[in-house]
Amino acid sequence: MASAVSPLAPQTIAELAPIKGVRLAALACGLRYQGRDDLMLAELAPGTTVAGVFTRSLTASAPVLWCRHALTGGKARLLVVNSGNSNAFTGRAGVASVSRTVASAAAAIGCTETEIFVASTGTIGVPLDDGKITALLGEGVRQLRPDQWRKAADAILTTDTYAKTATRTAKIGGVSVRINGFCKGAGMIAPDMATMLAYVFTDAAIPAPLLQTLLAKACDKSFNAITVDSDTSTSDTLMLFATGGTDHPPVTTLGDLTDFRRALDDLLLDLAHQVVKDGEGATKFVAITVSGAASARAAKAIALSIANSPLVKTAVAGEDANWGRIVMAVGKAGERADRDRLSISIGGIQVAKDGQVVPGYDEAPVTAHMKGADIVFAVDVGVGRGKATVWTCDLTHAYIDINGSYRT
Amino acid sequence: MASAVSPLAPQTIAELAPIKGVRLAALACGLRYQGRDDLMLAELAPGTTVAGVFTRSLTASAPVLWCRHALTGGKARLLVVNSGNSNAFTGRAGVASVSRTVASAAAAIGCTETEIFVASTGTIGVPLDDGKITALLGEGVRQLRPDQWRKAADAILTTDTYAKTATRTAKIGGVSVRINGFCKGAGMIAPDMATMLAYVFTDAAIPAPLLQTLLAKACDKSFNAITVDSDTSTSDTLMLFATGGTDHPPVTTLGDLTDFRRALDDLLLDLAHQVVKDGEGATKFVAITVSGAASARAAKAIALSIANSPLVKTAVAGEDANWGRIVMAVGKAGERADRDRLSISIGGIQVAKDGQVVPGYDEAPVTAHMKGADIVFAVDVGVGRGKATVWTCDLTHAYIDINGSYRT
Repeated sequence: MASAVSPLAPQTIAELAPIKGVRLAALACGLRYQGRDDLMLAELAPGTTVAGVFTRSLTASAPVLWCRHALTGGKARLLVVNSGNSNAFTGRAGVASVSRTVASAAAAIGCTETEIFVASTGTIGVPLDDGKITALLGEGVRQLRPDQWRKAADAILTTDTYAKTATRTAKIGGVSVRINGFCKGAGMIAPDMATMLAYVFTDAAIPAPLLQTLLAKACDKSFNAITVDSDTSTSDTLMLFATGGTDHPPVTTLGDLTDFRRALDDLLLDLAHQVVKDGEGATKFVAITVSGAASARAAKAIALSIANSPLVKTAVAGEDANWGRIVMAVGKAGERADRDRLSISIGGIQVAKDGQVVPGYDEAPVTAHMKGADIVFAVDVGVGRGKATVWTCDLTHAYIDINGSYRT
Repeated sequence: MASAVSPLAPQTIAELAPIKGVRLAALACGLRYQGRDDLMLAELAPGTTVAGVFTRSLTASAPVLWCRHALTGGKARLLVVNSGNSNAFTGRAGVASVSRTVASAAAAIGCTETEIFVASTGTIGVPLDDGKITALLGEGVRQLRPDQWRKAADAILTTDTYAKTATRTAKIGGVSVRINGFCKGAGMIAPDMATMLAYVFTDAAIPAPLLQTLLAKACDKSFNAITVDSDTSTSDTLMLFATGGTDHPPVTTLGDLTDFRRALDDLLLDLAHQVVKDGEGATKFVAITVSGAASARAAKAIALSIANSPLVKTAVAGEDANWGRIVMAVGKAGERADRDRLSISIGGIQVAKDGQVVPGYDEAPVTAHMKGADIVFAVDVGVGRGKATVWTCDLTHAYIDINGSYRT
């Protein structure tokens, strides 16, 4: 973890209560970091169903390839995550490293290999010394306890400045279930893929296909709608485990999960926002809503073009209400927009309308808004009804400090 | 112009000799800047043919819309360019402003309106006070002289730290002709569109359709192959004027222009490189060649994904040979690549091969290369024969300084 906590960090880190069927452990295996935990285990009760969304990167890491394969079984017993080394671009050695880890983990817990899920996050291209992980698996299994959520969330962090946790409850057939989640990520964060590492657990009993549908839909409006730097990780992983530890009426259709879905969507958005607020060097949290686009997909593409523009992001850092750069980013997005019907609001104040500046708009509240930490842009492109919101942060000197010297 | 000259600036700025059929003037009309010229006129002899490539931004400026229209005539008599205000996102007022400027210019020079080409560069969204331009047109026409190239090149600059000029000669049917060009641009530079403002002049006599073909092809490998910050201007304009001032055997096919084309391609690449070397905050010039892609188009998309990655660009700024980030950028490009056949060279030293680091590669020359100002990355993605090269610069603190405070 970096030393200074992000100014956008939440006031408190949510404490996660136990989930029936989940036990956790955090250990120090010394892959890269010294004096901190860097290995996280999460044991899932027999019968736990699993869903996952992974990076669409064509250079996906060996652990991601394994998880995609294992997911076809729909069941999970153990999750093994290390930080400090991503085991990406490590060739056949990386694949062999995953195989050994999975085999050791399956033996340690007593399950089939496809019930083991793994992830690695950290430096790319350095062979992973999996012996450091497998040597600790037996001890790790002995240390599993239901109350280790915070330690688990801490163990997977890399350049993050705070742990990212969230919890919700929901009713299924009148019975209350819990959803706990934690994630990591601060740089190499870009959308339209899965995300960084994010793990969500519930004691509900939900068939794997339904779980997968819920997760994919929720991901599109949360982790797939954030960007820190437009760069997409080779290790992005979002997984949801349902242990079935709580008895409730059986779930057979999405209709049985209306309240659960609301809670899950809300929790994922909470975690995704926490990632943006820990964006490398971030001092401002920016919400960008685009309306009036040809489709929701087009609206999202335009919103992301604005969110990823270095000129927009540096203007936000400089507290400059530079809506001209928003116009530029709309223009380069490649989606339909009516130049002469474009309107832009900043902090709720309309600054541009019908393709030109609003004459004599009140600059004082706009200037005051830009000095705050929560920035809100709304853009209407005047061609249809498509609408989307994405979230990003500003681009500051600290981003360059962090990334000009991360590896060496 | 910014005060400190880019460390990557050429040792000398090329002096441009007169071109038969071209006369230039630079004046101060006071649109935004004080104490410097901000209005440039270039008069073309009757019969001059013209070609142009413009931004594909959907929020293109009013001058760009006019030029696209006027270009259909294929003839040019006067070019009028101002700096300090881009006349973009200025609605109907911006269109009216162009109309008045064009009408005044046509009257001043005695030609039809579609022989007038205009461009504006600078702040977006501020109504253009075209009266300041039209008031000076008569005086400007009186000041036209064949030797004002450097003053003309200076007058169109904005955040540039040096004037960008280039000159070449070529043979057509055994007769020597000259090509002069100048351009501006330092930020809001992204490819797959035209470019910033770039003007190229020749005394050759070339029919407009051939001229347009030559320019479009040359642009793809020069201005459309550079990026400073992935942001695309609303004003990008590249124009080529052929005055026919020198007698040479008539040109009827591209085959008559082999040597001219070589010289033109070379000149445009020279100018495009000068733009990158004046990239806002740049301290390193980076050439990225991708080979082994499914097509040349795919190779260029992958190369641009690397060139636009903030993590790659900050690593270059930090002199860190972080090829893991190159892998990441290949993966997110969305084009076919074989993760297990990927190879990467830095400064001619192969650091990764067959999808993993080359064991024990010699780090010393790679480290020395990263400390230099000219950085060369070569990536083979192992799936085909497509190849492309693009050029970019690093992302430094100075970029954030410049763009956190440009407008206010």
